[in-house]
Amino acid sequence: MAKTSIRKVANGGITTPKGFTAAASSCGIKPGGAARKDLCMIYSKKPCVTAGTFTKNRIKAAPVKLSQIHLQRGNPQLIVANSGNANCATGERGVSDAHSMAQQAGEVLGIQTNAVLVCSTGIIGVPLPMERILPEFSKLAGKLSRSGGADAAEAIMTSDTHQKAAAVRVSDTRGKAYTIGAIAKGAGMICPDMATMLCFVTTDVMIEKKVLRAITREAVDLSFNRITVDGDMSTNDTVLVLANGASGAVIEEGVVGEEDEALFKTALVRLMQTLAKMLVCDGERVTKLVEIKVTGAATERDARWVAEAVANSTLCKCSWNGGDPNWGRVIHAIGYANARLTESRISISFGGIPACIDGVDAHTSISELQAVVAQAEFTVQIDLGLGDAACTMWTSDLSPEYVNFNRAEYALSRTRKG
Amino acid sequence: MAKTSIRKVANGGITTPKGFTAAASSCGIKPGGAARKDLCMIYSKKPCVTAGTFTKNRIKAAPVKLSQIHLQRGNPQLIVANSGNANCATGERGVSDAHSMAQQAGEVLGIQTNAVLVCSTGIIGVPLPMERILPEFSKLAGKLSRSGGADAAEAIMTSDTHQKAAAVRVSDTRGKAYTIGAIAKGAGMICPDMATMLCFVTTDVMIEKKVLRAITREAVDLSFNRITVDGDMSTNDTVLVLANGASGAVIEEGVVGEEDEALFKTALVRLMQTLAKMLVCDGERVTKLVEIKVTGAATERDARWVAEAVANSTLCKCSWNGGDPNWGRVIHAIGYANARLTESRISISFGGIPACIDGVDAHTSISELQAVVAQAEFTVQIDLGLGDAACTMWTSDLSPEYVNFNRAEYALSRTRKG
Repeated sequence: MAKTSIRKVANGGITTPKGFTAAASSCGIKPGGAARKDLCMIYSKKPCVTAGTFTKNRIKAAPVKLSQIHLQRGNPQLIVANSGNANCATGERGVSDAHSMAQQAGEVLGIQTNAVLVCSTGIIGVPLPMERILPEFSKLAGKLSRSGGADAAEAIMTSDTHQKAAAVRVSDTRGKAYTIGAIAKGAGMICPDMATMLCFVTTDVMIEKKVLRAITREAVDLSFNRITVDGDMSTNDTVLVLANGASGAVIEEGVVGEEDEALFKTALVRLMQTLAKMLVCDGERVTKLVEIKVTGAATERDARWVAEAVANSTLCKCSWNGGDPNWGRVIHAIGYANARLTESRISISFGGIPACIDGVDAHTSISELQAVVAQAEFTVQIDLGLGDAACTMWTSDLSPEYVNFNRAEYALSRTRKG
Repeated sequence: MAKTSIRKVANGGITTPKGFTAAASSCGIKPGGAARKDLCMIYSKKPCVTAGTFTKNRIKAAPVKLSQIHLQRGNPQLIVANSGNANCATGERGVSDAHSMAQQAGEVLGIQTNAVLVCSTGIIGVPLPMERILPEFSKLAGKLSRSGGADAAEAIMTSDTHQKAAAVRVSDTRGKAYTIGAIAKGAGMICPDMATMLCFVTTDVMIEKKVLRAITREAVDLSFNRITVDGDMSTNDTVLVLANGASGAVIEEGVVGEEDEALFKTALVRLMQTLAKMLVCDGERVTKLVEIKVTGAATERDARWVAEAVANSTLCKCSWNGGDPNWGRVIHAIGYANARLTESRISISFGGIPACIDGVDAHTSISELQAVVAQAEFTVQIDLGLGDAACTMWTSDLSPEYVNFNRAEYALSRTRKG
């Protein structure tokens, strides 16, 4: 059996895996016109094995509903995505618009409508400018190339300040190599209205649909479901994974492929966690990436509840923004997490330096603690002292600039659109 | 049967009901020294029938645990409260300090320790300066008077900008009159560390303990449990109701007193709602009081979940701060509330002006909607179009100044205290 490895690919992205091409253009959905890309295609010549996870918000955007159906029924090989408009709360017109996007994009590439996945992100409640979108598809199809991945990453950005892409190269147990690439866009509520998290993953490994779907669910749970910027859940959140087998590497079924399956999972989790942390760091007006590491919980559910409560606490996030090692706010958020607790067993550290031991002040020098919280990245360790269960999440601070940024986008966008 | 009535008492408060006296002083728990009152007593000569509700946070401050026990075992007639320090996360020393406060305050008035209720609010994790608190009790006892109510209201303030007090006068079915008075302090996280909501209610009506407790629970649920400023739940939240019977008016048991019981409940709910809205308006750096009125839900639980999701949405609160009638953010918060929904039946109005009808844009003039959201008080109506259940909550906007205010209190307070 060959020695396995997972390596980061420098400047890797969605078109790093073999057989995938992409292209993007500006069609004026976003304000600012031609300067800003807002429509893209990601294409595989071969039909793909696919997996996807979607928002749990009960108000789902039209393209989310459509992509869920196409993922079940078709053999997708094309993603069409636009930014600047979420096509959400747009009624029957929205459903019909999403369908037209799939149909007409499919037509120019000669593939069936249900082989097309559609994603939209941007303002809620405003119909898509279809007259600008539909004519772009033939141009996009003509531009599809291996070098178009970065353009696609740019076209899905909304309030993101930079594009997010990464790829890893995996050597499997038989010495065969394949790659996994991905692009993603903004968690944190996105200008003008939405926090939509989108992540598209491509890979040239051959893998069973059932296995890909199970691994995708797990990887999303360990990455995108462990980050929070403002606690709001978007109507459009979507993760899509497309595997086309073009590398020749195969993850065999059953016991034979067990080790390769585990390797693929590790690689996918690592890639998704990389992108998830990029999303937090580039959240709206975020200045800090904070890791919340809960240990010693009685159950995994308890650990998760505590991590979530602290990661989402407005007050904790304000204090981190100010570089303030306020453990009182951490313990008060722990207290309302609904987890099993014994106050006198709780310990809290910042970057490994204890702030609270056994439920009371650790009397550490405040300047040592401040030095940790002053950093752009640090960890808050919470030990509940009850059991072995643990959970790690990533969150951000909350800045006055975030609030300023989110004060008045709707009226502005309405005024803009007349 | 006499005509009943409930009337507001001008400048009423905690000492408006007969037989209650109060006093306050500055003993230097809060920074700023003698200028700021931080300790008070509220006293009834007669032992009282009492009821209380306390924080559901699993980290409970020492005085909360003590008051819960005294409420069960004793016949309370004295409340001792301090601001500036929450006596929370202070371990065994905190428990012993809370007990000493009850014991020594009781001693100077010649009453048993378990007849004393103790409340603290302020910083977490720092022991109380007992050497400054205990000597004050005999002075406070000497100052107790009917005119001390306003001083007590001031002494429980932390980051509140003004004191909160109100009273109502009730005429019952026999033509007898009694009053209910109350003081409260700050929802919204309180300088330096805590959001503690405290409310003390006194009344001179005679009422059964069982009845008072049931009515108190209901009234708190319809008032203080329907407000939110930042979604954080304090370790010290406490509502106490003391009834001493000094007016001579009696709420009889059983069918005889049914109408008087309902009257008392209406009066208590009205008083508590008045104070609850005062708390929201005086939340940290709040500029708007927003009523969230959900109707048409399939069940009451659904209505409540939707009201809570919208009332706590960071993004909705930012948009209200900016005077932005952003219904897209409202529907997206409705979507993650976990309630039964049919998107095409949801309607959203601001101050009665429709913004979204049947799940899509109502195409109202944006300036009309902006005029509503520009006001200091307005209502967001959400009709789910499914059933008859409803729920109303009160919330605030979220301002950049709130975040600025909450950035760095802990280190400041630590530095201050050496």
